[in-house]
Amino acid sequence: MNNNVVILLDLDGTLTLDRNTYSLDLEAISEIRNIQKLGVRVFIVTGNSYPVSRGLATYLGLDGVVAENGCVIYFDEEESLCKEIDSNLVLEFERKFNLKGSWQNRYRRYDFGFYPPDLKDDMISWANYRGLYLKTSGYALHLSYNDKGKEVGVNRLLSLLGVDRKNVIAIGDSLTDIDMMKLAAIKVAVSNADEELKAIANVVTKGSSGEGVKEYISSLANALHGSNKRTC
Amino acid sequence: MNNNVVILLDLDGTLTLDRNTYSLDLEAISEIRNIQKLGVRVFIVTGNSYPVSRGLATYLGLDGVVAENGCVIYFDEEESLCKEIDSNLVLEFERKFNLKGSWQNRYRRYDFGFYPPDLKDDMISWANYRGLYLKTSGYALHLSYNDKGKEVGVNRLLSLLGVDRKNVIAIGDSLTDIDMMKLAAIKVAVSNADEELKAIANVVTKGSSGEGVKEYISSLANALHGSNKRTC
Repeated sequence: MNNNVVILLDLDGTLTLDRNTYSLDLEAISEIRNIQKLGVRVFIVTGNSYPVSRGLATYLGLDGVVAENGCVIYFDEEESLCKEIDSNLVLEFERKFNLKGSWQNRYRRYDFGFYPPDLKDDMISWANYRGLYLKTSGYALHLSYNDKGKEVGVNRLLSLLGVDRKNVIAIGDSLTDIDMMKLAAIKVAVSNADEELKAIANVVTKGSSGEGVKEYISSLANALHGSNKRTC
Repeated sequence: MNNNVVILLDLDGTLTLDRNTYSLDLEAISEIRNIQKLGVRVFIVTGNSYPVSRGLATYLGLDGVVAENGCVIYFDEEESLCKEIDSNLVLEFERKFNLKGSWQNRYRRYDFGFYPPDLKDDMISWANYRGLYLKTSGYALHLSYNDKGKEVGVNRLLSLLGVDRKNVIAIGDSLTDIDMMKLAAIKVAVSNADEELKAIANVVTKGSSGEGVKEYISSLANALHGSNKRTC
């Protein structure tokens, strides 16, 4: 029944070598490919734009993505789940608070990123007055109409997959992963995760970021391999 | 003087496990990271859209990209080098020849991709009549106003880098890599490359695709390491 096991994996700070770099942990990706051979499906759930997320999933060999913090999914086909933000509103926010827009904003429609990633009260007021929501991933500020974050995309993905939540594992490092954790029976935080995420996690890995991902997936693969043998 | 050595690397069929998959060869990427530590700079030169290419370069830890088959580069900042194609023209081409547009076409401006990747005479006539050019990478058909392909972006990149062409190495697998090879002193074709590319290559690797990349870069790293030691 391994083909019912689904791993939801945050990208920045989780599948990377550390929380302060974008470089992916290649050993963690290698471990993901091993567990896929056992029938486990692995998805990236990230705040990145759709083309960056789908491009990465394609070239890493993953099974699909939840992009723009829950607003777009790809599993066989693309599906959008949020209200688009008018580009004038995006520019107004960027200028008013003297922020730098993410280079990916040109390719986004529902969830826009800005630097520095520090949330301030007057920004939150500005956003809420317009029906918008603000979150920080530690990498960037994110502005969208979606108050449920990654939960929206993950909920739709899991329904497409027809998978039982007891077989869903989520791995992350930041506050923005709490929304996806809500839908996973097994909630894994890497050792360098935000304290609030560790507090709700069932498992906190020994290793940080990609090292923690590798450690968890490798132990899961061993367990599944053992259970396969028993059914022979 | 290793920081003057530049490697230009095609993506599809070259850095992948084979020519019929998009999955990247993780061992080849690991070898790239090793040689970067010696001061060698590594760039992806690909027909992919800008966000997919830059996203991959960012998460793989590469030094920049030439995307859209030479039409956009990224090295510290983005620069565009071709004439944009009107989206109505893209749609007309797609419908007239009953092709499927690449999912990345929404994120492209200068070079559009279509499937299946087979070039036909009536397509070429249609394109040339409109001042457009058609090429095939084996993965997709590419339509653009750029008749010099990857050469345009690579030429600009090398001038930004201020690197001597004798220190430029290009590695590829297909016909669309011939344009980039023109600017490299060392032209490397992987063993499963198109015959026309092998014919102009200085080096044909023993291994295919990513295996060949790993093999070539690893031997280069050994050579550079040796030359570093001698200068101590």
